[in-house]
Amino acid sequence: MTAPSRNALVPFVSVDNMMRLVLHIGVERMMVELAAEIEADFRRWPLFDKTPRVASHSDIGVIELMPTSDGETYGFKYVNGHPSNMKKGLQTVTAFGLLADVATGYPLMLSEMTILTALRTAATSALAAKWLAPKGATTMAMIGNGAQAEFQALAFKAVCGVTEVRLYDIDPAATAKCARNLAGRGLTVVSCRSAEEAILGAQIITTCTADKQLATILTDNMVGSGVHINAVGGDCPGKTELHRDILLRSEIFVEYPPQTRIEGEIQQLTADHPVTELWQVMTGAAPGRSTAKAITLFDSVGFAIEDFSALRYVHSRLRASGLFQDLDMIADPDDPRDLFGMILRAQAELAA
Amino acid sequence: MTAPSRNALVPFVSVDNMMRLVLHIGVERMMVELAAEIEADFRRWPLFDKTPRVASHSDIGVIELMPTSDGETYGFKYVNGHPSNMKKGLQTVTAFGLLADVATGYPLMLSEMTILTALRTAATSALAAKWLAPKGATTMAMIGNGAQAEFQALAFKAVCGVTEVRLYDIDPAATAKCARNLAGRGLTVVSCRSAEEAILGAQIITTCTADKQLATILTDNMVGSGVHINAVGGDCPGKTELHRDILLRSEIFVEYPPQTRIEGEIQQLTADHPVTELWQVMTGAAPGRSTAKAITLFDSVGFAIEDFSALRYVHSRLRASGLFQDLDMIADPDDPRDLFGMILRAQAELAA
Repeated sequence: MTAPSRNALVPFVSVDNMMRLVLHIGVERMMVELAAEIEADFRRWPLFDKTPRVASHSDIGVIELMPTSDGETYGFKYVNGHPSNMKKGLQTVTAFGLLADVATGYPLMLSEMTILTALRTAATSALAAKWLAPKGATTMAMIGNGAQAEFQALAFKAVCGVTEVRLYDIDPAATAKCARNLAGRGLTVVSCRSAEEAILGAQIITTCTADKQLATILTDNMVGSGVHINAVGGDCPGKTELHRDILLRSEIFVEYPPQTRIEGEIQQLTADHPVTELWQVMTGAAPGRSTAKAITLFDSVGFAIEDFSALRYVHSRLRASGLFQDLDMIADPDDPRDLFGMILRAQAELAA
Repeated sequence: MTAPSRNALVPFVSVDNMMRLVLHIGVERMMVELAAEIEADFRRWPLFDKTPRVASHSDIGVIELMPTSDGETYGFKYVNGHPSNMKKGLQTVTAFGLLADVATGYPLMLSEMTILTALRTAATSALAAKWLAPKGATTMAMIGNGAQAEFQALAFKAVCGVTEVRLYDIDPAATAKCARNLAGRGLTVVSCRSAEEAILGAQIITTCTADKQLATILTDNMVGSGVHINAVGGDCPGKTELHRDILLRSEIFVEYPPQTRIEGEIQQLTADHPVTELWQVMTGAAPGRSTAKAITLFDSVGFAIEDFSALRYVHSRLRASGLFQDLDMIADPDDPRDLFGMILRAQAELAA
């Protein structure tokens, strides 16, 4: 049939093209650039249209839509969370996302976001640590060595100057996989046999486990003063990783309180427990870490603005990289009122 | 690179393939089948996960996400509404949607929905009229002859037995376009010069105009007893088509009250004004039209379950029709925990 009009075509970034883009830019450079993009958007936080994600829960998982807009560009992400998927050989978290033009409502780009979410989550974690971790932090414990682990390690290396990561997972095969993937990348990688061993000498502790349960990956006596905790895995109702007593000793920083109070570690606390919004630390509206001895906690659940920043980053690299394909996704007849006539013309062309 | 795994691929129905599917099945048969699918889902209404659509408003339009789930399948639609788009040569409403498997969160199908929305809106309108219009209704007035008009006309012919449509639009070119497209399809088509002329002898009145304003397409004295009004165009805050007095004389039927009270004609009424949910008429839980002389009003705004039904209908025809392409949309490494390793293997293949 007649080729679709330019307005009908939406650039699509496939998984294959996202991998090529990451390799083209380089993982660490991409982490630094993503963190800069996210920080720039966090600094103009009040300008965004914000809403807690729209979740559809079932017994074994959740499907969520995460929309936001800065008034010029609209973005949303579709993302699922199914901890039992791993046993079926499937990803626990898969995602895709879309950018659209607020002025017309027309889509600007569709993109895979399973890989991009891992990148933006790691970039956000490292960005938070850049603002909150104790000065001179170079060693990070990583508890949970699954799909997110290598991204976290490389983001902390690139953005925060971490030089040593100490790995622990209840499944030694996950630790071995992570250590193998990180080999030769300029990090000292230490595989540990317990969470206690992993946190030895660490100024930063990242928890990133996937089980949906009220877990206690870290108990109170494991966490000494002057550390920064990057709690990534506790991100939906009923899924936490830290003992409540750690939270009570910590200075807590979050993305968007209405969402984090439902989904984050702080679901264990009262609804009025004081927390600081990370964007306010960046703009100077709120203090960050109070003293070198404080425990800072970034209670990360992932917010729509981070996906928006990541999608905009990818979109800005599209034309130069050429790493996309056009999808015939929008019906766009010459006369916008003649949608039906478009079908009739297609019929005539098929018959010809 | 190595071909993506089967789990990575999501069938995508482009605009071109949607047009081919419509032509393959036939517009009228598709309307009848869509109406049946929608009725079947309305009859199991309480089972669905329901939420008002998630809207992001700007000065000149709105972008919405409309999710729902029946516990086995999840669906959502992205749809915009930008009345000023037409002047730019763009569609007022464009849409796409997705089905996913609730058990895994993995997408099952991505589809264009600009055309599909026009089809499902018309099928829903005709379905409502099948239950609510006076017996033996054969003539329909159509006020507003834009992108939705031909779909509405053919749905009412196929589902309700309408034999004559009387067209009126403030722009005669829209009426001419509609009359031209409907020629030779077994309908008597009468082009009229006023709304008053269009409603002469009509037992059904469809209003489907696009201006975002508190319009009065129908005034009170235009509407006599014993008619059914299918009000399609009033579908967002500040956008209505009927004079309030008509509403006060009508038996009002809606899709999902929490959404219709915000978006429909009934935004002009108090929040406790009695309305009947259409699904309850179908199951017998609530009465439909009370007498032959009553005015029935279907205050249509479009609900997520109709999109769900339409997407499931298209999905059920995919394999037989072959009218789709596979998108490499889900990162699906052999070891689900080895997302990073997938990138490393891609690098090795690119270097080879």
